[in-house]
Amino acid sequence: MTTVPGTAPMQGERIGLKHGAGGRAMRRLITETLARGLLTPMQNGIGLAAMDDGAAIPLGDAWLVVTTDSHVVHPVFFPGGDIGRLAISGTVNDLAMMGATEPLGLTSAVIVEEGYRTVDLERIQRSMVEACHEAGATIVTGDTKVMGRGELDGVVINTTGVGLAQRVVPDAGLRAGDRIILTGSVGDHGIALMARRHGLELDADLVSDVAPLNALVRRALFAVDLGITAMKDPTRGGLASALHEMAEKSSVGMVIHEPAVPMKPAVRAAAEVLGLDPLQIANEGKAVIGVRPEAAAAVLAACRAHPLGREAAVIGECISEHPGRVILDTGIGRRLLVEAEGELLPRIC
Amino acid sequence: MTTVPGTAPMQGERIGLKHGAGGRAMRRLITETLARGLLTPMQNGIGLAAMDDGAAIPLGDAWLVVTTDSHVVHPVFFPGGDIGRLAISGTVNDLAMMGATEPLGLTSAVIVEEGYRTVDLERIQRSMVEACHEAGATIVTGDTKVMGRGELDGVVINTTGVGLAQRVVPDAGLRAGDRIILTGSVGDHGIALMARRHGLELDADLVSDVAPLNALVRRALFAVDLGITAMKDPTRGGLASALHEMAEKSSVGMVIHEPAVPMKPAVRAAAEVLGLDPLQIANEGKAVIGVRPEAAAAVLAACRAHPLGREAAVIGECISEHPGRVILDTGIGRRLLVEAEGELLPRIC
Repeated sequence: MTTVPGTAPMQGERIGLKHGAGGRAMRRLITETLARGLLTPMQNGIGLAAMDDGAAIPLGDAWLVVTTDSHVVHPVFFPGGDIGRLAISGTVNDLAMMGATEPLGLTSAVIVEEGYRTVDLERIQRSMVEACHEAGATIVTGDTKVMGRGELDGVVINTTGVGLAQRVVPDAGLRAGDRIILTGSVGDHGIALMARRHGLELDADLVSDVAPLNALVRRALFAVDLGITAMKDPTRGGLASALHEMAEKSSVGMVIHEPAVPMKPAVRAAAEVLGLDPLQIANEGKAVIGVRPEAAAAVLAACRAHPLGREAAVIGECISEHPGRVILDTGIGRRLLVEAEGELLPRIC
Repeated sequence: MTTVPGTAPMQGERIGLKHGAGGRAMRRLITETLARGLLTPMQNGIGLAAMDDGAAIPLGDAWLVVTTDSHVVHPVFFPGGDIGRLAISGTVNDLAMMGATEPLGLTSAVIVEEGYRTVDLERIQRSMVEACHEAGATIVTGDTKVMGRGELDGVVINTTGVGLAQRVVPDAGLRAGDRIILTGSVGDHGIALMARRHGLELDADLVSDVAPLNALVRRALFAVDLGITAMKDPTRGGLASALHEMAEKSSVGMVIHEPAVPMKPAVRAAAEVLGLDPLQIANEGKAVIGVRPEAAAAVLAACRAHPLGREAAVIGECISEHPGRVILDTGIGRRLLVEAEGELLPRIC
């Protein structure tokens, strides 16, 4: 059993919202309860123990990548998207982050509350079809369940994806010297949702970034041979959690240049009003890409050539000191980037 | 758009419990709403249009089988099992019904309500590990979400499975003359749950049959070469729904000999008290297997040689007349077997 450092054991506890928020509390719930006895590393491949974006199973001379996500976002319809677009994009992106940019197939399992309006389900379903079209993906099978009135808040959707990768890109492949590329601005998805919940829709720029990134990632992978060492999409827990996970798993330190992190002025302003740190806020259409220094320019150019990557930037680099730590260089000083414990933003995805 | 015959359109409706019950109402929701625009048959393979137990995607000289299910069973702990055993068994069985009896990997996506007891999650997780062990399956990746208090009734689990099949066994492969084998007694799972809900636990025999069937199915497939023409597990909607789906998709009629259908006396008695038809009740450890007549004896023997198939029986045969109809021969007369519209048993799986 792996214990996440610096946290108390789970015994006798009840589940809190923080256990679903993508940070340390969730990783503890997974390692100590949900994945207990299942964390033996796969002999050949990437399994549950890696706690990556998905699994990679050897299949002939390639890898079968499998990834699953349940989507419980509230509200279901939000500025810039809805639960259907989120479900398809999230799963396509998790496949892409492992190196599988052409999904073999997606599954869609819908659980809906008795009394839910059919017209809303139809709208969600159209979004799923559109997002599949954008991503070149197909829903190959599904499941439908209904829970009674009051037993479920509306609708939740699980999507699972399978794809083939010639080479798997893990979270854990970073080496000292690698550059960190972020494909666009941070915080858009989470801030758009929180602004809507708080009636704060001041600005037309406060829209979710939810989008399938597989075409962008395919370009980046094609641009360089083996120069991409790690990829992760900074969803729950935001950029802060994604960088921490990558640094911990790769046993490197990281220096992030805060002024280099793309951020929309509207997001910055709304985050200030809401008292949130945009680096801890979920994104649904961004990727963190670790690259060898000599490949950084080519990968950056490939990202920027794609409409979803126009604002891509090199935001930092990996160092051999301080393994597992992420140092934020603010331009006027340095501090440790803090990862959220958790419960800031329930039901963000 | 395919319309299920004899049903009104969905427009303006709200979702009812019947839409999740595995019968005609659910198939209508799927064809008219959830899978709208997605029902073009796959050119090569089995996709959403087949509405089979899962999908089959061509991969080299084999098939990648993918299947997904969300589990919302209530109560979570029931006589003979719990939601964890149900989730793993259900997914392993859906893979097996398509011909993939050795899972490459399973996913586990848990959604839990704030305030849920960690000790109950641990118990569910141990069940999942045990069922995986029985089935020779591995959970390779997962997802964890938390919903607020009152937003979800406890816990729901989605499991998705992937496996390889050398030959896919569809629902739709039956031909006139084929025999129908049922691997054991009907109604055990649903009646055990309903008895528990109604405080009717009169009999120690009222326990769910929930179990992974892949080893039994592997034996049956090995026993004959191409003699198995169709397989389906009679879960939601029970034997009646499974037989109807197989008959409709295969364009054959069926004659089922009611006295030949294995049924436990305790299940028969409880069903009478509850006013339920055991043929419409969910099973979670049974398979319906269609076989060429010359292969029936070998498949029956193979099933009976496995502990989960000791009561296997030939319960009927396919005919060229009355395509899509299932005729029940009661021993004293014949009548059409009626498929449940739906809402008898919410949250049975």
